[in-house]
Amino acid sequence: MIPYKTSIQLDRDSKQALYLQLSNQFVTLIKNRVLTPGAKLPGSRTLAAILEVHRKTVIASYEELLLQGWIESIPKKGTFVHQSIPLLQQKEFSNDAQPPHLQDTGFSFLKEPLLERPPNEELTNFHYLNDGVSDTRLSPMKVIAKEYRGLANRKRSIDYLGYGTTYGNPELRAALAVYLNETRGLHITKEQILITRGSQMALYLASRLLFESNSYVIVGETNYVAADLTFGYVGAQLLRVPVDENGLNTDAVESLCKKYQIKALYCTSHHHHPTTATLSAKRRMHLLNLARNYNFAIIEDDYDYDFHYDHAPILPLASHDQNGNVIYVGSVCKTVAPVYRVGYLIAPKTFVDQCAKLRRIVDRQGDSLLEATFANFIKNGDLDRHIRKVLKIYADRRTIFCDLLKKNLGEAISFEVPKGGMAVWVRLQPQYNWKTIAISAKKNGLIIGDWARYDTAKIEHNSLRMGFAAYNESEIHTVIEKLTLAFNESYPSLGKSE
Amino acid sequence: MIPYKTSIQLDRDSKQALYLQLSNQFVTLIKNRVLTPGAKLPGSRTLAAILEVHRKTVIASYEELLLQGWIESIPKKGTFVHQSIPLLQQKEFSNDAQPPHLQDTGFSFLKEPLLERPPNEELTNFHYLNDGVSDTRLSPMKVIAKEYRGLANRKRSIDYLGYGTTYGNPELRAALAVYLNETRGLHITKEQILITRGSQMALYLASRLLFESNSYVIVGETNYVAADLTFGYVGAQLLRVPVDENGLNTDAVESLCKKYQIKALYCTSHHHHPTTATLSAKRRMHLLNLARNYNFAIIEDDYDYDFHYDHAPILPLASHDQNGNVIYVGSVCKTVAPVYRVGYLIAPKTFVDQCAKLRRIVDRQGDSLLEATFANFIKNGDLDRHIRKVLKIYADRRTIFCDLLKKNLGEAISFEVPKGGMAVWVRLQPQYNWKTIAISAKKNGLIIGDWARYDTAKIEHNSLRMGFAAYNESEIHTVIEKLTLAFNESYPSLGKSE
Repeated sequence: MIPYKTSIQLDRDSKQALYLQLSNQFVTLIKNRVLTPGAKLPGSRTLAAILEVHRKTVIASYEELLLQGWIESIPKKGTFVHQSIPLLQQKEFSNDAQPPHLQDTGFSFLKEPLLERPPNEELTNFHYLNDGVSDTRLSPMKVIAKEYRGLANRKRSIDYLGYGTTYGNPELRAALAVYLNETRGLHITKEQILITRGSQMALYLASRLLFESNSYVIVGETNYVAADLTFGYVGAQLLRVPVDENGLNTDAVESLCKKYQIKALYCTSHHHHPTTATLSAKRRMHLLNLARNYNFAIIEDDYDYDFHYDHAPILPLASHDQNGNVIYVGSVCKTVAPVYRVGYLIAPKTFVDQCAKLRRIVDRQGDSLLEATFANFIKNGDLDRHIRKVLKIYADRRTIFCDLLKKNLGEAISFEVPKGGMAVWVRLQPQYNWKTIAISAKKNGLIIGDWARYDTAKIEHNSLRMGFAAYNESEIHTVIEKLTLAFNESYPSLGKSE
Repeated sequence: MIPYKTSIQLDRDSKQALYLQLSNQFVTLIKNRVLTPGAKLPGSRTLAAILEVHRKTVIASYEELLLQGWIESIPKKGTFVHQSIPLLQQKEFSNDAQPPHLQDTGFSFLKEPLLERPPNEELTNFHYLNDGVSDTRLSPMKVIAKEYRGLANRKRSIDYLGYGTTYGNPELRAALAVYLNETRGLHITKEQILITRGSQMALYLASRLLFESNSYVIVGETNYVAADLTFGYVGAQLLRVPVDENGLNTDAVESLCKKYQIKALYCTSHHHHPTTATLSAKRRMHLLNLARNYNFAIIEDDYDYDFHYDHAPILPLASHDQNGNVIYVGSVCKTVAPVYRVGYLIAPKTFVDQCAKLRRIVDRQGDSLLEATFANFIKNGDLDRHIRKVLKIYADRRTIFCDLLKKNLGEAISFEVPKGGMAVWVRLQPQYNWKTIAISAKKNGLIIGDWARYDTAKIEHNSLRMGFAAYNESEIHTVIEKLTLAFNESYPSLGKSE
């Protein structure tokens, strides 16, 4: 008989029932060959005495082991470790209780490089030049949480709890159809809407259905990094066209259409990401005509439609689409707060139907309760109110940010004051470089993002997107002061000519 | 001058500002060639008089159109539709205001068959023999919603709102590591957990990383339909092994390993889906040894670990994995309610890291606020309390369901009383068939699911999964009565021999 007194450790303070602890430890002993097939187990009285537990605990434990097939009971002979349990082969046999924290797999898998983000710096005492995110402190989370709970307390809300449609909550689809038709000049019915987890999932689903290995997709010479990543991941070949102050160069698009069979074009027509340029009316029409003539899809990512300051937003391409070429994606994440992963894909019904089927495989369905909450949030006018409120704040922040930037660093940089959005596209004069400035900035508590990632076409454009929306007036002053200090430390001659 | 009075319809009750309505309608007139490039627009006074609006409205509208590039202003001459706007070519030129509700796309996309579910029948007045879902009426949604709102009202909850890690909320990862180690004999750290949208997303991410086109995956001869679908969608070749009362036949697995290079095996070891058979201890050890020797991954989908009635659950394969072969997936959806799309994937850290990168592409990240809610739900013991409560209820329902089934239909069917889970695997005697019975059942208000979909290997096994958990005692009586009636109507001789 093995030394059960020391081989088995029962923890009376554990939440786990004693009999279960006991049977689990028997399993470990069997697996670790301490008890081998055919080994006799002590009688229940004996073991109960050794371990100082009630005999019923031992009996329950043995019953459990019998049921699980680890041991067998032979009448008039006793209880034995089951003869036919193959022993577990281990790479390293470890006798101590602590199992190895497995770092690597016993199987191979695809390790193609996916997006590597630089590890998050410790941001607690740092300011960060982000690339244009909203100020989560302004988020109406209490209103949303109140609505959520209110909904959960209603009796018929049980309807939201079960498995449901992969298209998304029907009330949100209906509310969004009305809302988007009203605000963006669309002419859609709810059947043309798929609710997604933010616009990223919409991009992903569309990409999976559009692209096969080596399909061609047209993007800007510099482009939204996650879109490039998504298209590349699904196997599409990226063809790049120049971007100027009127957005994507559509003549270059036309040239590519003549050479390649284009499957899709990706654009952020309202404000090109990252440069913030708005696609001109002329190019919009040109693009829609090209899509029609060459039968490609336009993936229009309208990520910051809600944020425009100087004039009303320009209606999306989707509002002019008469031929079913536009796949329109957007979300409320950017508008309300990133945590609410509520986005949408709008397209002709046949495409939406296929996306909904694919969705079944990717994550089964959305969160119908949260989606219903957002349906009410839109219908009650809360979304409108929220947008009106933050729009004024962000417009002010933009002005303060751009004024300070121009005043302090006008000599070293150039930029257009953006008409909307949450970021400024800042070009550095060629004699300076962000790398030097970033090192100095970090010493002063300011982190400058990875500018190189905007240079997707490797044209060394030396530009950086600077978000202004997440900081209040006093924080903006601090950020620009730190940035100015970093410039001055890096380039002491800067400003001396004045 | 075109007849503006009738061409432009302004709605004073609309939420949209008048000047915006006006500019949008001008855009439509330009796009529809009612106003052609170079056409002169009326002066603001004239148009204001025609439309009976304030002159400022017309001026604001023209400014908008100028900014958007639709019109141009020529000093001393007036305002004109921009010369260089290419006209929009339309498949069908439609002059009426209603745009076509686009049914089809102007581009091609992949239309490979994805899962087609039979359209939802009108279930309001029907009972439904589902394949094993929980009773959402028992869901602790009020507790969760209260916790959610409480969390949202805390000041530091702003931290949850922004963009975050793709691994999932850190508090939930930590809480789950403790919880799963305690309840399932795992020995994991939180670094080995990725939070997913239910177990379906875990399956999807793992499949994407494991399988390339024509990789081999082993599954049961009948298997969980969504798993088959997922593996098939990503291009894996399915190899099937028989399933008996001890689960997957591991000797058959071994034979396949000798013939093919196996990439992974999928199992629902606790209760095989759909048959509910538990994988025996002997086969568990055999499987782990095979995985080690042939370097394949075991995807262990422990979908109903929380639901076991007669004895403690059998510890998952993952708890015995010493060599990094097991990818363990599970969720709280099934346990709490499907709407809460909170699942997890547990594997060696290198695999989890790669899944987290892929996740960035699929849907960016999870809902950190909901995940933090569930972290508290677990830490407060609410999950434990919920499981204890429903376990007793479901055990009773199982007994009632099986007793009635045996009593009323014992002659026509056979089944094992399941030791856990939410469904019974019912085999029909060969002289009967579900198709006939389903027609009769529907007349009596009972819908019988699609039995053919369990027959994945086309072996005509004639069996059906019947869920018992979603119905209370009186509903179970009704359901079995209706089923019995359908049997008797379909096969009048049934029961006559008694």
